[in-house]
Amino acid sequence: MFETDLTRRLNIRYPIIQAPMAGGPATTKLIAEVSNAGGLGSLGAAYLTPEILRSTIQEIRQLTEQPFGVNLFVPVETTESQATIEKMTTCLNKYRIELGIKENPPIENVSESFEEQVQVLLEEKVPVFSFTFGIPSKDVIQAMKKQGTIVIGTATIVEEAKQLELAGVDAIVAQGSEAGGHRGTFLGNTTDSLIGTMALVPQIVDQVSIPVIASGGIMDGRGLVASLALGASAVQMGTAFLACIESGAHNVYKKTILSANEDSTVVTRAYSGRAARGIQTKFTKEIDQYPGVIPVFPIQNAMTRDIRKAAAKANNPEYMSLWAGQGLRLATDHSAGTIIQQTMYQSHILLEKMIKVSD
Amino acid sequence: MFETDLTRRLNIRYPIIQAPMAGGPATTKLIAEVSNAGGLGSLGAAYLTPEILRSTIQEIRQLTEQPFGVNLFVPVETTESQATIEKMTTCLNKYRIELGIKENPPIENVSESFEEQVQVLLEEKVPVFSFTFGIPSKDVIQAMKKQGTIVIGTATIVEEAKQLELAGVDAIVAQGSEAGGHRGTFLGNTTDSLIGTMALVPQIVDQVSIPVIASGGIMDGRGLVASLALGASAVQMGTAFLACIESGAHNVYKKTILSANEDSTVVTRAYSGRAARGIQTKFTKEIDQYPGVIPVFPIQNAMTRDIRKAAAKANNPEYMSLWAGQGLRLATDHSAGTIIQQTMYQSHILLEKMIKVSD
Repeated sequence: MFETDLTRRLNIRYPIIQAPMAGGPATTKLIAEVSNAGGLGSLGAAYLTPEILRSTIQEIRQLTEQPFGVNLFVPVETTESQATIEKMTTCLNKYRIELGIKENPPIENVSESFEEQVQVLLEEKVPVFSFTFGIPSKDVIQAMKKQGTIVIGTATIVEEAKQLELAGVDAIVAQGSEAGGHRGTFLGNTTDSLIGTMALVPQIVDQVSIPVIASGGIMDGRGLVASLALGASAVQMGTAFLACIESGAHNVYKKTILSANEDSTVVTRAYSGRAARGIQTKFTKEIDQYPGVIPVFPIQNAMTRDIRKAAAKANNPEYMSLWAGQGLRLATDHSAGTIIQQTMYQSHILLEKMIKVSD
Repeated sequence: MFETDLTRRLNIRYPIIQAPMAGGPATTKLIAEVSNAGGLGSLGAAYLTPEILRSTIQEIRQLTEQPFGVNLFVPVETTESQATIEKMTTCLNKYRIELGIKENPPIENVSESFEEQVQVLLEEKVPVFSFTFGIPSKDVIQAMKKQGTIVIGTATIVEEAKQLELAGVDAIVAQGSEAGGHRGTFLGNTTDSLIGTMALVPQIVDQVSIPVIASGGIMDGRGLVASLALGASAVQMGTAFLACIESGAHNVYKKTILSANEDSTVVTRAYSGRAARGIQTKFTKEIDQYPGVIPVFPIQNAMTRDIRKAAAKANNPEYMSLWAGQGLRLATDHSAGTIIQQTMYQSHILLEKMIKVSD
């Protein structure tokens, strides 16, 4: 059903990719459930050490024999001034006091080694490697492709898609402005490059010759059929799975998702230093008004980690990063398998209805 | 072809509404061409005096016997401090000197009388009345409906759609963030309420029982089929017609549209005081950095009118308001009739292709 160039290539039954969602939601259970249901489960592995990355991949393989993907963040060289870091530390101490955790903690585990993560993916011969925030070296892309791993990049504007195609990727995720989580932007301006999915997908499809995966605001069969109509070969859905049974999102996070509206999100640099869409919280409101400079990603991400962890422990959503897209009213707490089945069923019924009125 | 509840109600052949585009692009020729081709042409009449509004409606009627719509801006009570106005006048004088026009001009024709405009629409018994920026009084809506005029409101978030339905409108334009021109937002925050079309349409469709018209980023048959899949009963297309033969857009404006990209636009208050999406220009860049307060709509709109006019006369796009949506790469210079025919043809072919792969 809805076999496309890409589903054949990925060897999956349905054109549905579960968004990688680094940092918790994408459990091995969720990934395996999606892959077993005919979609492509994806591990958001950016924050995993090489050791945990390897064991997680092995865990997925115990839960499913179907293909799955692993997503990494392409590193961007960054430095931040000591003054900027010190000022932000002072600002963040306010939250630490409120949460009862230690002030002025050392900044640890700023980022994992991309090279070591890539090495694990090569050794484990993962079926699909996807990435965001840039383009890995030609060597990495070629090594992946040589061993049969399908390589998927992420674009938020047409120029990024063109560069990804030139670099040799097999498919491109077109990340529309509706999408939750980090913006993948690496050539455009991260705030100006908020192109809606409806506009972005056909413009990318027209400019590249490889399959395009629509992402951003796609929550059900309506979004799937709409995306295929726009020329996409598959969809990537994140928010649709955030509150599902197998999602590893914190209970408070899930509850917030299920009661949130289409206009509950903002694009913020507050939590990580990089533009990302999530539910507006006390933390985003306050830090988005911060008079100084917010440290760049991944420094700000490392600096807020203790706060986010303590907030999660205290069941306090106001200081947690609640990444989510704009399709929020359509999120459900079903199982991932049910979400996929319902999406496919709805798509089928919908197309039949549409063909009837088309004459 | 693609007959829906709404096309029957509007008595049009195809589910395509040409966006009203106040201020020039929507000429009587364009409106008539769209209506004659089977869509619904629409006049953006917000800036027209009652006399010109009446003569324009009569002109449209001489060019087509098909239904057409007239769009007005619902007035919002606004005042602006003298200090804010004086500061902006000083700021704008810089552009006046550059363009060789008079400094410190009097602020004239801030807005037309909505009541008088409505009176003309009632007397002329226009087939369709659409509006943005709020909800007219129940009296106005009931008077329109009583005489057979179909009433269409504009929503950018679900809550606005619910309020519009309660007020008794016949259909709702769901204006996604991709859309060009003024944001219709009247309950949400104008900048935070930038919900992408892919996410907005199904969420509104689920919450109201009247037909929904998708708008924002819809440029061709792909966008039409996608919108119908999302649950819309029709689409509203603006940018798709901006550079067409019958469009009254300035030649420089048309040229800019035809060479612009998906990320050429910004949402700005620079020209009118109200958030609107248009091509980024020297003027939007500079005024968006303005350290003071930008006067509210329609005061800023009246204050920049002489500058926009002089810039148009000088063929200088940098000080013209070049409203446009994010679908820019897909704009064409064909005739409006051809755009409608191609959209319908493409939709048909597309659906047939999709139904083939759906099994």
